[in-house]
Amino acid sequence: MAAKLAASRVAELARTIPEWKVANDAIQRTFLFKDFTQAWGFMSRVALHAEKADHHPDWYNVYNKVEVKLSTHDAGGLTEKDFALAGVMDKCAKPLLSE
Amino acid sequence: MAAKLAASRVAELARTIPEWKVANDAIQRTFLFKDFTQAWGFMSRVALHAEKADHHPDWYNVYNKVEVKLSTHDAGGLTEKDFALAGVMDKCAKPLLSE
Amino acid sequence: MAAKLAASRVAELARTIPEWKVANDAIQRTFLFKDFTQAWGFMSRVALHAEKADHHPDWYNVYNKVEVKLSTHDAGGLTEKDFALAGVMDKCAKPLLSE
Amino acid sequence: MAAKLAASRVAELARTIPEWKVANDAIQRTFLFKDFTQAWGFMSRVALHAEKADHHPDWYNVYNKVEVKLSTHDAGGLTEKDFALAGVMDKCAKPLLSE
Repeated sequence: MAAKLAASRVAELARTIPEWKVANDAIQRTFLFKDFTQAWGFMSRVALHAEKADHHPDWYNVYNKVEVKLSTHDAGGLTEKDFALAGVMDKCAKPLLSE
Repeated sequence: MAAKLAASRVAELARTIPEWKVANDAIQRTFLFKDFTQAWGFMSRVALHAEKADHHPDWYNVYNKVEVKLSTHDAGGLTEKDFALAGVMDKCAKPLLSE
Repeated sequence: MAAKLAASRVAELARTIPEWKVANDAIQRTFLFKDFTQAWGFMSRVALHAEKADHHPDWYNVYNKVEVKLSTHDAGGLTEKDFALAGVMDKCAKPLLSE
Repeated sequence: MAAKLAASRVAELARTIPEWKVANDAIQRTFLFKDFTQAWGFMSRVALHAEKADHHPDWYNVYNKVEVKLSTHDAGGLTEKDFALAGVMDKCAKPLLSE
């Protein structure tokens, strides 16, 4: 099981994903795409990564907006898995956001 | 554009989707599946219906849970479109929930 | 119903989608992505467009490869719908292919 | 790496998935759903399982039809992974097919 990260490590990793906010033992980012098809293409790709890592996001979608919150319930806070998934999401969103 | 429904019509339509709650000019249902793959199969099918009808849900997912809220922003409340999408969602969820 | 296009119109439209081959009353393109997650993100986005237009591709996928064939069965050949869907596919693939 | 199965083991496993045909070192099944949304809901769920197992199907889709061929390229034939994925596909298709 992934271990809850120390605050210093959270701060260090947070600098690698500047688009995300750290708050209440979780990291959050809102993605704004052009339309639902972009948002859905993004989510469909991320879903595969999440299932493979057995680490699933809390995410909310309406039309072009995807609000994501990541934390590791079992560990009671943030773990390496959350930052790994955040990195994957940033990577998957990038080509779509610059379309 | 779909017109906002009168309270009497909302009450009438609400009876056709007993699993949904009417609250604050919206209808809501929480679907609890067995795992993420079921939840995602459901959402992927519903996404096609939503895009086709050009009427998109507010939905929140984490693992096996899908919380849905439907309303018609343009109309400032509930329209026939919301009840149509709710009916589609119930139909798509049913075979999975009884799997 | 969409009407089968004259050969001259097919030739004209084919020039707008140079990555596609015209053969046997159909247009074909093979997309090579980096991995399955890219291919699937692409297909998931295109699926929404296809359902909305009520015009569905013949497509074959294995891992990072998506082979597409478009034609309009009802019309017995190529119609404007095929070229419209091809254009959508090119647009959806582009950001992923240059990722 | 999964090892290619002996013919006797293939015959044994094939009896557990009677809807599939064994041919040319592969197993094949055609799924006929009601419409594209059913077919796509099925594929979207299976895609998660495939990515998680890092074992991807050869599959062809047009509208309500999904033709699947499974084999393990690395092993030059059928392995336990193919029969596992076939079982998952049967399980995911069943509730939709009886909808």
